[in-house]
Amino acid sequence: MESAIPPYLTVERTRSSRKSDTFQPPYPSFSARFDPSMQQVVMAYFGVQHASQDPPPVAEAALTRLAGTAGGAHRERARYVDEAGYHTTLEIRYWTNPAEFASWLADNDFWTTGPASPEAGFFLEAAQPTVHRFETLFSNDRVEGIAVAADKLSGEIQEHGYWGGARDRIPLSQTDTLAPFGAVSVHTSGDLVTVVPNGNLCLIRSGQEWSETDGDERRMYLEEVEPVLRAGMDFLRDDGLPIGCYANRYVRVLAEDGSQTDKSFGLSWWRGLEDLETWSESHPTHVAIFRVAMKYLSTMGPAARLRLYHEVTVAEQSQTRFEYLGCHARTGLLRTLR
Amino acid sequence: MESAIPPYLTVERTRSSRKSDTFQPPYPSFSARFDPSMQQVVMAYFGVQHASQDPPPVAEAALTRLAGTAGGAHRERARYVDEAGYHTTLEIRYWTNPAEFASWLADNDFWTTGPASPEAGFFLEAAQPTVHRFETLFSNDRVEGIAVAADKLSGEIQEHGYWGGARDRIPLSQTDTLAPFGAVSVHTSGDLVTVVPNGNLCLIRSGQEWSETDGDERRMYLEEVEPVLRAGMDFLRDDGLPIGCYANRYVRVLAEDGSQTDKSFGLSWWRGLEDLETWSESHPTHVAIFRVAMKYLSTMGPAARLRLYHEVTVAEQSQTRFEYLGCHARTGLLRTLR
Repeated sequence: MESAIPPYLTVERTRSSRKSDTFQPPYPSFSARFDPSMQQVVMAYFGVQHASQDPPPVAEAALTRLAGTAGGAHRERARYVDEAGYHTTLEIRYWTNPAEFASWLADNDFWTTGPASPEAGFFLEAAQPTVHRFETLFSNDRVEGIAVAADKLSGEIQEHGYWGGARDRIPLSQTDTLAPFGAVSVHTSGDLVTVVPNGNLCLIRSGQEWSETDGDERRMYLEEVEPVLRAGMDFLRDDGLPIGCYANRYVRVLAEDGSQTDKSFGLSWWRGLEDLETWSESHPTHVAIFRVAMKYLSTMGPAARLRLYHEVTVAEQSQTRFEYLGCHARTGLLRTLR
Repeated sequence: MESAIPPYLTVERTRSSRKSDTFQPPYPSFSARFDPSMQQVVMAYFGVQHASQDPPPVAEAALTRLAGTAGGAHRERARYVDEAGYHTTLEIRYWTNPAEFASWLADNDFWTTGPASPEAGFFLEAAQPTVHRFETLFSNDRVEGIAVAADKLSGEIQEHGYWGGARDRIPLSQTDTLAPFGAVSVHTSGDLVTVVPNGNLCLIRSGQEWSETDGDERRMYLEEVEPVLRAGMDFLRDDGLPIGCYANRYVRVLAEDGSQTDKSFGLSWWRGLEDLETWSESHPTHVAIFRVAMKYLSTMGPAARLRLYHEVTVAEQSQTRFEYLGCHARTGLLRTLR
């Protein structure tokens, strides 16, 4: 058993972790391990939204152009229908060096530079946390998200399987409350709306893959677990703002050919980590998810083939980027401005 | 909003509490407030067990003698059927001064001084925590347990409504992990078996009163909540040992005339607070209790007339007393010795 925080990021704690050194997690989990020379990553979400089911030509053209543009350590596509009923395609890209992202973006700034189209809205949402400011968690050895850019996975880690584990896995929590501060502000320049969030904004990508499930396990995931997960995701999407959830998307990952894979994830922005913690540990919608997931996992035991992971980031204000071009008023962080 | 830890017990933290200063609990709760001159309390459980449903003469005589013996700041009786099917009557007494308890016990030592009877087993289990080592929590203004000896209740407190709140309310947690240490040992002298537990043993009394519920609320408590609570209590009673629950009794409080009241509580001894926390926050039996309780409370809203409370103690070894006379081998802490 090892700490989720690797030795080179371990400092003398001024804030205690929640569990004792003898705490035994109820099941194994792992964290991504990066090369110690890697200091900061980029998690960038390029979105295009449209009321029509199929992308209009302006959206299709932009997606094609983006697809043809190399850059980043990992990329993938996903789709969802948002709070206003808009069909949205996301291209997600990860970089392991913010300078490379900045350089790439300087050469490929077409996504949100407009002009705005009445047919489709474009947005770029990005977090660029240093390694002190994010953590990853995997139930198995198949990596997803930023961890694809990692060297490897850790051995079994200790700080998981309890409420507050995500905080304890974020290196900066050793000495910092990670409390949000300041307000969200907005800047408009022509058609482009830029949002500057509060400090210590929180991002979670929390995913599941059921590709290798079959029979009873597949049926149990699809019929018992997934509807409860979806209800929680819908709650956050539609009613999350009063509890600090700025935006939530429950997305389906796409294959190369655009077809749906057996992978999905929830992607949500929160005012701060504590708001996310509070929903997770006590809101009826998440208690229901937790309960059905526990039932599933205890029924399946070690034979369970459902794969789970997440990545949680608490970003500095200057480590975020929110740009909206021709998007409806409830898109992403725009919702916080009403 | 005030802290659960009163100013005279507040010290500079070397261990952080879990929530921020701006955390808003989801509903109001209160803690007992004692006179600052009160330094240590006694929570004493006098139990008598028998296989027969009605107390045999030796049990009846001892209960009558105990009833006729004044002493303590508060007393009450309760009954339950234990893990071996033994009917057990508890007399619970609280003192606000350990010297008074010691003096009383010197004059009234008949409970466990024997000789042992084949008809009934007697036990005394007691915790004598200083005020740094226990906390109380009430959903309303009707006090129970040690709080009957308190001056008053606090205003609305901040440290509740999240996992880890009990720890944050115990004053000693400001500077101490409250981790259990050492082993349980046993000493036999004639018929009397004395158990010395590990350090930082944990005691919880967690109760509910449904006296003032009626109609749908009463039906919902009795038909939807109580069976789930009972299942959790049964689990701890029968299968709790591997997860650190040394003993659990789910008891019904008795009226003066010996009839059942609409009050019950769970009374359990744990190896340490972290074991109790882990069961509470993640074991399927408690997640089910939490879920059904939340559903009940959210259905009823502020009109709910179910009353909830608990008291949690983390005791020093020298602040405990466990004596068993003629009890079966699974009684109380005897179970830990097998």
